[in-house]
Amino acid sequence: MSEVLSGKTVAQAMLEEVKTRAEALSAKGTPPKLAIVRFGARPDDLYYEKGAKRTCAQVGVACDTTELAADVPEAEALRAIGALNDDPAVHGILILQPMPKHIDTAKVRYLLKPEKDVDGTSPINQAKVFEGDPTGYPPCTPTAVMEIIKHYGIELKGKKVVVLGRSMVVGKPASMLLLGEHATVTICHSRTKDLPAEARQADVLVAAIGKAKMVTADYVRPGAVVIDVGINVDEAGKLCGDVDYDSVAPVASQITPVPGGVGSVTTMVLAKHVVRAAEKVAASR
Amino acid sequence: MSEVLSGKTVAQAMLEEVKTRAEALSAKGTPPKLAIVRFGARPDDLYYEKGAKRTCAQVGVACDTTELAADVPEAEALRAIGALNDDPAVHGILILQPMPKHIDTAKVRYLLKPEKDVDGTSPINQAKVFEGDPTGYPPCTPTAVMEIIKHYGIELKGKKVVVLGRSMVVGKPASMLLLGEHATVTICHSRTKDLPAEARQADVLVAAIGKAKMVTADYVRPGAVVIDVGINVDEAGKLCGDVDYDSVAPVASQITPVPGGVGSVTTMVLAKHVVRAAEKVAASR
Repeated sequence: MSEVLSGKTVAQAMLEEVKTRAEALSAKGTPPKLAIVRFGARPDDLYYEKGAKRTCAQVGVACDTTELAADVPEAEALRAIGALNDDPAVHGILILQPMPKHIDTAKVRYLLKPEKDVDGTSPINQAKVFEGDPTGYPPCTPTAVMEIIKHYGIELKGKKVVVLGRSMVVGKPASMLLLGEHATVTICHSRTKDLPAEARQADVLVAAIGKAKMVTADYVRPGAVVIDVGINVDEAGKLCGDVDYDSVAPVASQITPVPGGVGSVTTMVLAKHVVRAAEKVAASR
Repeated sequence: MSEVLSGKTVAQAMLEEVKTRAEALSAKGTPPKLAIVRFGARPDDLYYEKGAKRTCAQVGVACDTTELAADVPEAEALRAIGALNDDPAVHGILILQPMPKHIDTAKVRYLLKPEKDVDGTSPINQAKVFEGDPTGYPPCTPTAVMEIIKHYGIELKGKKVVVLGRSMVVGKPASMLLLGEHATVTICHSRTKDLPAEARQADVLVAAIGKAKMVTADYVRPGAVVIDVGINVDEAGKLCGDVDYDSVAPVASQITPVPGGVGSVTTMVLAKHVVRAAEKVAASR
């Protein structure tokens, strides 16, 4: 049976450092603060927001939510985000995704100040991830994947990593971060001809396709490391990942569970990014 | 023996369209213009500049060079680029690379107006390539690779593409452009464990590592398409690619030569980007 890569353990290990840095900032008069922007009240947004607030409270990062109506006029939404850009007390801005369809996502992404864009959706941060420039903020989820890999000392150099999924939220940035650690990276997606065969080549398999339990044992080479980024609901209404845990766990050497895996690290990464953003502000004073 | 993918043929095929568009712009009072910025007088810069000017002349794109001393103070270089940014007669700016070591490349890249950055080095254009947003300008060399693939009708959807090299000039942007055409993309580099074995999996192999004749027949699956992006000089002082053409050509189904391959398309892509930039300016009037 494989070793469970516990996201909770990783988040716990990160907590002390993030908290110490947040306290130092507050002591110096720059209490780190996150602004969450939420459109409407979708249950998964509320769920994520609750988790983010809990983590922020644990480490001493202030967190306010700007609630916008689901049908807020675009100009008003842009004004609200502009106000957060300009508010010197706010160090990080998280806009819960996806935004309503009538909002031009590009306008928001280009408006958001890169130095406050702690979830890496602005073009400047995307370019930095693409380039391998560590001064930017990659999105929290792929960063959480890297934190787990680092915490458990999983070797990447020269290793074969297969990423299932090519979204800008996970697949592509994860690929670039893994490439930055000198892995040989294959990016697969829905058009890939033989997905199981590609996946079976992986020393480390990262699943980020958003399909419940799609990755079964035949996708996994015995002894591979499996990182499950999916958060789905199965036919029984239970939270599950992209990986069919019960069939894959006996084959893999190490595997992240869902829940309790990548998702458990994401909000800690978010808090850490806010602290880093606040540190930069404090250092520039 | 394999079919030769002639860059000259591709450039020739592009010429008429680019020329027609350039003439239409000139007729409407917006003659398209490229500004080349060169530091010092390195022979390869002069060689590339000469090629760019020849292509621009062929299609009716004006082209001026701003010559800066190799030891020009950084502030002065930034002022010169800022002036080109502000010059309404200039639609595209190409800064010959690499810049001298005392110039902070990031400062230049962040200064350059994305809408004039026809060789895709500004962060906004990098983010657009990363994201798959076609409104940006990817670097000319990987775009030339795509033009060759398109011209010869090489199918990418679901195909396995292996890119050797992870630079921001070729490897990474080429990977994203290929991914955008729904290829399954593997990015290899100097730390990849078994480079020939990875390369042999490719339906389409893109070599962009900058080592003369490194890719030998054992890197190539019989029948694969081989695109050689390298421009090197061999031990006899002759121009050659990253691919050992004589050993690979009998194995591949289609192959680009060096010279006469990707490099022959690059300046036509550059001219096409300048025309597109000028068209946007004309349309916004």
